[in-house]
Amino acid sequence: MLSRFGHRKRRRQRLRNPERTRRVLLQAAFREVYRTGFQSAGLDTILAATGVTKGALYYHFGSKDGLGYAIVEEVVANFHRDRWLVPLQRSDDKDPIDALIRIVRAMSTRPRDIKGGCPLVNLAQEMSPLDEQFRRRLERIFQAWQTAVAAALRRGQSQGTVRRDLVPEEAANFLIAMVEGYQVLAKNAQDVNVWKAGMRNIAGWLNSLRAPRRPPGVKVR
Amino acid sequence: MLSRFGHRKRRRQRLRNPERTRRVLLQAAFREVYRTGFQSAGLDTILAATGVTKGALYYHFGSKDGLGYAIVEEVVANFHRDRWLVPLQRSDDKDPIDALIRIVRAMSTRPRDIKGGCPLVNLAQEMSPLDEQFRRRLERIFQAWQTAVAAALRRGQSQGTVRRDLVPEEAANFLIAMVEGYQVLAKNAQDVNVWKAGMRNIAGWLNSLRAPRRPPGVKVR
Repeated sequence: MLSRFGHRKRRRQRLRNPERTRRVLLQAAFREVYRTGFQSAGLDTILAATGVTKGALYYHFGSKDGLGYAIVEEVVANFHRDRWLVPLQRSDDKDPIDALIRIVRAMSTRPRDIKGGCPLVNLAQEMSPLDEQFRRRLERIFQAWQTAVAAALRRGQSQGTVRRDLVPEEAANFLIAMVEGYQVLAKNAQDVNVWKAGMRNIAGWLNSLRAPRRPPGVKVR
Repeated sequence: MLSRFGHRKRRRQRLRNPERTRRVLLQAAFREVYRTGFQSAGLDTILAATGVTKGALYYHFGSKDGLGYAIVEEVVANFHRDRWLVPLQRSDDKDPIDALIRIVRAMSTRPRDIKGGCPLVNLAQEMSPLDEQFRRRLERIFQAWQTAVAAALRRGQSQGTVRRDLVPEEAANFLIAMVEGYQVLAKNAQDVNVWKAGMRNIAGWLNSLRAPRRPPGVKVR
């Protein structure tokens, strides 16, 4: 009986804290969408995982689409900001190639993350052709990513650490295409080693962007 | 009345030709899955598009999963064979870098193909973590692709047209990751120009795999 009372008390406390309810719903919805895709994600599964009522879900997000947009704008965007944008800003006085290689090497090699794939690509692949509202929100994340990498490379060109013959925006998109492409391959292989080989090759390509240290014309390393 | 009779006659003929019925179902199912994903694809939509009965669909494919596996093994695999494997075999006496650049440049730039994305990636992204039967069939396509590109690069190494310091399998996967990664970006941007920039950068990278024509040590082009 005590445990049942305890459970009821916890549940009431949860419902009295709307911000916490919203956060709990968003995390559970992200997990369900990550597992099965947005279209197949069941609101009942999300509610069952959280103990929240359907009314509360609609109060916070308005609709299933609204919940999906919040997943993109809050969970996926924050994940990418923490993974790419913040480390690039923090190392803005250092060699950007070193910083980019460090970011790639810090990416998850946990089997469950490799098997589930990149949340940004998963949603972009599924929803961008179907829903313009989804697409625009996902596009903002891709653009912020490209802008941050391009700015870092441009800074490296000014510092003399990055080759001057590359176009920063094009090189940034090349990097993003590779990161996402290797994650697609690793997800399909359901094999961490595919991603680990990808990390090595991406780091190798990043190293090829370094400006030559010796006077030009002698030998390009 | 004539046109109604004509319609009935055509429908009877269609039902009397099981191979044709199967092909018509498979093409309609591919289009519906390409549009909306496998899980969301409606069997009723496919039947409505073809005028075939549900009984005929189950007769030919056994289940919705069976229909999905047939899409991978027949439609998607054939598409990749025609796009990559056949041209690489046909040009096995020529420079493989030229052949690969030609294949990449021949890839579709039609807006509807860019907006729909790569059928192989679409299905791999959606179904590989959910269904091992799907995953294995998709994996066979990725592996045949990697094997064919790696064999072409290895042949180039023997001919002296491809750099000897690259590992053919790793370079093949790098190419596949880039092709798929750029298609993911172009699909999300819903923008043909993202893919066109990708084609240029992939061709540039392929050119960087050529063996130096002058004696080594002078300058790597």
